[in-house]
Amino acid sequence: MKALQRVSRAFVLLFAALAGLQLAAAQVALQSWNDRAPKKAIEAFVERVTKQGSPDFVPVAERIAVFDNDGTLWAEKPMYFQLLFALDRVKALSGQHPEWKDKEPFASLLKGDVKGALAGGEPAIVQIVMSTHAGMTTEEFDKNVRDWLATAKHPQTGRHYTEMAYQPMLELLAYLRAHGFKTFIVSGGGVDFMRVFSERVYGIPPEQVVGSTGKVKFELRDGKPVLVKLPEIQFVDDKEGKPVGIHQFIGRRPIAAFGNSDGDLQMLQWTAAGSGARFCLYVHHTDAEREWAYDRQSSIGRLDKGLDEANARGWTVVSMKDDWKTIFAPATK
Amino acid sequence: MKALQRVSRAFVLLFAALAGLQLAAAQVALQSWNDRAPKKAIEAFVERVTKQGSPDFVPVAERIAVFDNDGTLWAEKPMYFQLLFALDRVKALSGQHPEWKDKEPFASLLKGDVKGALAGGEPAIVQIVMSTHAGMTTEEFDKNVRDWLATAKHPQTGRHYTEMAYQPMLELLAYLRAHGFKTFIVSGGGVDFMRVFSERVYGIPPEQVVGSTGKVKFELRDGKPVLVKLPEIQFVDDKEGKPVGIHQFIGRRPIAAFGNSDGDLQMLQWTAAGSGARFCLYVHHTDAEREWAYDRQSSIGRLDKGLDEANARGWTVVSMKDDWKTIFAPATK
Repeated sequence: MKALQRVSRAFVLLFAALAGLQLAAAQVALQSWNDRAPKKAIEAFVERVTKQGSPDFVPVAERIAVFDNDGTLWAEKPMYFQLLFALDRVKALSGQHPEWKDKEPFASLLKGDVKGALAGGEPAIVQIVMSTHAGMTTEEFDKNVRDWLATAKHPQTGRHYTEMAYQPMLELLAYLRAHGFKTFIVSGGGVDFMRVFSERVYGIPPEQVVGSTGKVKFELRDGKPVLVKLPEIQFVDDKEGKPVGIHQFIGRRPIAAFGNSDGDLQMLQWTAAGSGARFCLYVHHTDAEREWAYDRQSSIGRLDKGLDEANARGWTVVSMKDDWKTIFAPATK
Repeated sequence: MKALQRVSRAFVLLFAALAGLQLAAAQVALQSWNDRAPKKAIEAFVERVTKQGSPDFVPVAERIAVFDNDGTLWAEKPMYFQLLFALDRVKALSGQHPEWKDKEPFASLLKGDVKGALAGGEPAIVQIVMSTHAGMTTEEFDKNVRDWLATAKHPQTGRHYTEMAYQPMLELLAYLRAHGFKTFIVSGGGVDFMRVFSERVYGIPPEQVVGSTGKVKFELRDGKPVLVKLPEIQFVDDKEGKPVGIHQFIGRRPIAAFGNSDGDLQMLQWTAAGSGARFCLYVHHTDAEREWAYDRQSSIGRLDKGLDEANARGWTVVSMKDDWKTIFAPATK
């Protein structure tokens, strides 16, 4: 009898604690979101899929939410931050590559002419990325990214790049996790680049980051195993590649997807096509004053087809200007 | 004052509940393991890395444990179960492929001559796998695997294949998770095949299964997005591929690795080479009576170099005959 009492007492304690945790969850709020349709749509969806007894209830294990990174979780202007990293690395490595002085796209770049360097289009970009993202071990690359993030600053805002994450999206990530969601990044960016800061900045651990990958080779160097980054692409996690990446890396269909460009459209389509309640959201860059305003004509982060499809299908479109009280978190890190 | 009391009371309740959970964790025991060196080594390692204040303490987020599947978590004789699935699928599909009657390796197979069919070696196996694992959507493939697992039985034991998971390893998975580990499969097997049963059988969710992958293509069929499995290999997660797969899919180095063959050697080397406490274990198939006995000469699951390296480096080697009280869980599912 005494044992039974002890067990029931333990259960009472456990339930009390869980109730406390639930209270804590309720306190993770979307504070930086104005009280408009997008905020209400998010909250309504979360209630639908998490409330016991709801016809749309989704078990915790299936509460997968996927987020694009560039332009959705952090800024992407004047160009993808990973490309800015690559440009800085070219400068840092130029001492070891005297031949770059006479070779495009490096020559222009080293003269400070970024536009000229990128005039070569995609082949030029691939050359810059490959020369700075390969030919080293994964640990060496990791250190390069870490050092750059700690020192480099955005040319216009003067902030560290990790301080250019969107405060409302950080709140949204925390809000979803507090309601049992598992949050993933699904980005065209390089996975080795994003994993360096995803946990610290977004609370998303490396194993929940899906991105583009380069080939990697296992080697024993003096008996010590290393992974060497090769200058070959393994997988491009963009456009049609995003549902593919979701399938290969996550292995279940998300119930919520968040993006900002046409590169995210197939991910949102794939998410929306599942059975049961689904949520798709586009971040629309409408705030020229506090951030940047761009959509249908932009070379980076173009939102054109996606905007039409969002309107046609009733997906949520966030206007950064109207829906967000703050854009970036206070720069304190 | 009253609020403060309420808060401290909530904390007391929370800690009491957490203590209860810890008690529950302690009750997840390695019951099917004999009280010998491997069991003691596992318990000692887990204590070293989880005990607060231990010099080898590892934070929860970094407690990554990786497990090979075939021969480590479930049996692999007379051949990989996924290959048995493929053979059964060839028979099921033969009505749609009248040309197979005169075409090897299918012709032999359809006459019941499995040995003859596999005499063509790797090219024959690739043909069999590609003809049964591609040319359909991921959802169709998923259903094929699900139906097969529900009906097919092992030719020697008469068990469903999912009933041929090793009971001591199921306990080990639960034991590690109860101590804050995140358990992953890292297998040469196909990821789309394993993900169908990994959660139900091992408690490992799809997003924690790393394996070999085929290419997959996103398509809109009548406006409905589907993923089509193509007859092309994307990534082979075996031997040198295992540390690569760990890097690409998990993005951090495990602190514990479990395998049974030379195909797992590089995964164990990669795990062992990290700094701090590490644990590597080989399952050695020594029980001809209750399972199978094989190692250095076996065509499937050969353990040769791995056995030498385990002996040289003091890795734990489990003798299934001596260390395990039970091999398979009672066949009740």
